[in-house]
Formats: sequence, structure tokens, C-alpha cells
Amino acid sequence: MHDFPAPEILLPHRVSYGETDTMGYLYYAEYLHLFERARSEFIRGLGMSYRDVEARGIMLPVREASCRYRSPARYDDFILIRAGIAEVRRASLVFVYNVMDENRKTILAEGMTQHAVTDRNGRPVRMPVWFADLVSGACGTSH
Amino acid sequence: MHDFPAPEILLPHRVSYGETDTMGYLYYAEYLHLFERARSEFIRGLGMSYRDVEARGIMLPVREASCRYRSPARYDDFILIRAGIAEVRRASLVFVYNVMDENRKTILAEGMTQHAVTDRNGRPVRMPVWFADLVSGACGTSH
Amino acid sequence: MHDFPAPEILLPHRVSYGETDTMGYLYYAEYLHLFERARSEFIRGLGMSYRDVEARGIMLPVREASCRYRSPARYDDFILIRAGIAEVRRASLVFVYNVMDENRKTILAEGMTQHAVTDRNGRPVRMPVWFADLVSGACGTSH
Amino acid sequence: MHDFPAPEILLPHRVSYGETDTMGYLYYAEYLHLFERARSEFIRGLGMSYRDVEARGIMLPVREASCRYRSPARYDDFILIRAGIAEVRRASLVFVYNVMDENRKTILAEGMTQHAVTDRNGRPVRMPVWFADLVSGACGTSH
Repeated sequence: MHDFPAPEILLPHRVSYGETDTMGYLYYAEYLHLFERARSEFIRGLGMSYRDVEARGIMLPVREASCRYRSPARYDDFILIRAGIAEVRRASLVFVYNVMDENRKTILAEGMTQHAVTDRNGRPVRMPVWFADLVSGACGTSH
Repeated sequence: MHDFPAPEILLPHRVSYGETDTMGYLYYAEYLHLFERARSEFIRGLGMSYRDVEARGIMLPVREASCRYRSPARYDDFILIRAGIAEVRRASLVFVYNVMDENRKTILAEGMTQHAVTDRNGRPVRMPVWFADLVSGACGTSH
Repeated sequence: MHDFPAPEILLPHRVSYGETDTMGYLYYAEYLHLFERARSEFIRGLGMSYRDVEARGIMLPVREASCRYRSPARYDDFILIRAGIAEVRRASLVFVYNVMDENRKTILAEGMTQHAVTDRNGRPVRMPVWFADLVSGACGTSH
Repeated sequence: MHDFPAPEILLPHRVSYGETDTMGYLYYAEYLHLFERARSEFIRGLGMSYRDVEARGIMLPVREASCRYRSPARYDDFILIRAGIAEVRRASLVFVYNVMDENRKTILAEGMTQHAVTDRNGRPVRMPVWFADLVSGACGTSH
């Protein structure tokens, strides 16, 4: 549980029946939904919701996503999704995630998503100043 | 298996792992996804895709949906979704659905969705002539 | 906002990007996921999680579900899902739901789910005493 | 479109409304559902469904998944998911995927999933002979 960038947020989540599969596990695609929820809360914590970011004309489509599944979560498990920004470039961002058990003792999964910075039409653009300011303080001194 | 409106379409579907739950069943919300797939194919069969309907400025948001679950489907089951139009009014449409096993012997589920006819802003409108023409022949003499 | 059975629970929910569709609305099948989350919390509030109910050999598969969609929810909207039990019979249960905006002023959607009471193999059984006791106080004096 | 392991399968898929998001794109988590569908068909093509593999006591939980999103897919797009096995080890398997447009001219996304070979209880096991035989001919001479 080291080397996670600061600041970070922790999103609590209860695993629902609909998120599980025949194996009884939280289905592997659902982790990407949880990552989205967590980074949305992270951005909100910076002072502007992602909805407002889009309303200002900036979109952050996912260019790459990955997840390592260490230990399954099951129906009704109470889990925590930790999110932070690992990297800010001129036209891209990298978020990182941990999915943890309720006691923060076990990392159930680790993930990342890389995002382009684009205009409304999906064309890559250089990060505007207001957005760079928003994320600049949020990127990532490891701890 | 009577009283289903003609014409109808049959959409084949293989139940995926991600659609099932801890009980080993096709999760109950997934049926509404399947209904959407089936009515999309039904509309395509009339000669215009729902994407093109929307491009012409008409949207069909769901106002009501219901489903009766008679018998579960499981991972890897090959099922058929039957769709038809049961009712066309001036500003609304009703689709009906059956989910059937591979041999069409058992109805696993029965459903319906009622749709408003709206403009792009979600305001109810009277069905335009081109759309009324599209669906007029497709509504429902029971058989 | 009348005639909702007491007791009730209110589950807060933030609409995620992955739950929305091209129309920009919370997709209609997602409401059934939210209903499941809300009834799961309702059961927990009675003193036993649904996971524990299943561990004791009782399952509550959905026999029927319906939803009326009054007003759309959009990405990032903060909504509330209200759940209660409207009916308890010897071998079945009916839950009812309201989806409300943050201020509880508008009902965005209303729904219900009817559940069979079955054993682990999906065979309908008469409600055992411990389960009848659990839900007896929870069923529904309208207010 | 080179260096994809042979043999391969191509799974056709029509993007549904429920799979898209407010951006109008196929939501990024949905690609993992499509990968699952494609590898399920791949395994079936080897002569035994994954359901039967599990019935014989072998499970293939995902240990790692990743996806690069090159170009978005939208509602009603007809896409193809190509799947193959890139690597077989004693206790693990790697599948690779391409998501392509209808004409196979553009790769919309590339992905991989790494799977452990486990028993019913999720404990890693060495691949049994019958399963090694099943996948041995399916692994991956690049072309």
C-alpha cells in the first residue's frame, strides 16, 4: 500500500447482486465502472465536477485502461476505491486506482486509466490553463 | 405462445458471464437491455434504423417498462427475444417482448415497453407522417 | 409523494457516466439495479443482510418488475431511491420504489418488484418463521 | 492488423443504446464484456464451451485485463471482435483481442486478458491434460 500519489480520495462501495457473476465474484468489467466513479469524485474534490469540465468544453475520453485482479470481491462486500492522479502531461492525464477491502488491509485490485484531453468533438487539445490549474496541485507526490 | 402481434422479429442471444449474477441467473435488469436490442432490430426491419429516426429528430424515450420472469436463463444459454408492436397512438408506442428458449418451447419472460414520441429536447410531439407510415404497417394484428 | 409504505429507506446515488446513454439519460435498465441496491439496504435495515438470508437457504428471485419513468436523471445528478415493502404473502413479497431528485420534490420514477420465496434450488417455499418475523414489522402501513 | 495469433474468431456485435454513454460512445467498460463474449466463442470453437470447462472443475478467472481505445464506436455501429490465444503456460492463459469496424479496416481497440487456471475454489492449479490438449493447438503462431 505504498507509492500511491497524494492527494487521494476513497470512495466507499457496496457490491450489488447485479455487479456479480455466476462465479459469485464482482465481474471484471465492473471495476472500470468503479474507477470512473472514483475519478469523478476525485475531480469533484478539486473544486469542479467533471460535468462542469465538459460544460466548459473539455472532455477526457479514456485512451487506455488496465486492471490487475488480486483477490475477488463478492456480493454485499463493502469495499473502498482509492483514486489519485499519477501523471499530468500537456494533453493527457493518468489516474491510478486501488480497490481495497473494508479494513484497508488487502488490495483487491489495482488499476490505471489514461485520458486524452480533447474538445467536444473528440479532437486532442492542449490542456487549457483553467484545467491545468485545477489538476496541477492534484498530481502526484508519491507517499 | 399466442396473441403475439405480427409482424415480429426474433433476436438470437447467447447469455454471457457478465450478464449473470451470483444466483447463476441472467440478471433481471439485463432483460431490458435485450428488449432494447430486439426493438432496435424490429425498427431496422421496418426499413429505417432507430439511429436514423433520431437523426431525423424523433426520439422514443421509455415511459414505462415491465417484465414477468417465468423461468431463469443461465450462462451460455442460447435464447431468442421476440419483439413486436402492440399499439400505436398519436404520441406513443407500445412494444411487447417474449424471451424464449432455443427451441421456442418455453417462454422464459414476457415484457413490454411504452415509449413517448418526442423531439430532440424530450418534448412530446405528435408522430410525424413519415414515422407514422413507418410503424403503421407494423402494428399488431394478433395471431 | 403519498401512499408510500412505512417503514422506508432512502438510498443516495450519484449517476455515473457508465449508467447513462447517448440520450444523456440514466439508461432505463439501470433503475432496476438501483431498485436492487435500495431493497438490499432495506433488508439490511431489518436486521439481516440479504446475503445472510441466502446463507440460511432462502432466496428471493424477482418474478415481476416494472417501472414508470417520469423525468430523466442525467450524469452526475444526485438522486435518492426510496424503498419499502408493499405486500407480504405466504410465498411472495412486493417491494415498491421511488426515484427522487436531491430535494425530494420530484419523483423521477416509480417502480415495483415482486419476489417469490424459494429454497436454494429455486423451488417456491412457504416463508419460514424467522423470515416472516423479519419482514412482518416492515410491511406497509401507507402514509 | 498484423501479428495476431492464429487461430482466431470474429464475433459480430451491434452496439446497443444501453452500452453507450453521454458522450455517445460505447462505454469503456463494455469492451471487457465484448472480450468475454469473444473468448467464450473462441473456446467453443475449440470443441468445448467454457460452461463445460467449468462443469469439469476448471475455472479461468481474469488476473489482468487491459485495453487501448483508439477510435470510438457509437450506437448502432456494427463491429467485430477478434479473439485469439497469445500464450499458454502451465497455470495461466493470455487472450488478445481487436475490436474492428465492419470493414475490418480500422482497429478501434486492442486488448488482452490474462487468466489463472484454478479449481472450483479459486485455487491455482496446473492445467489438466484434457484442458492443455484443448488449448494447445489454439495457441498462437502469429501471422
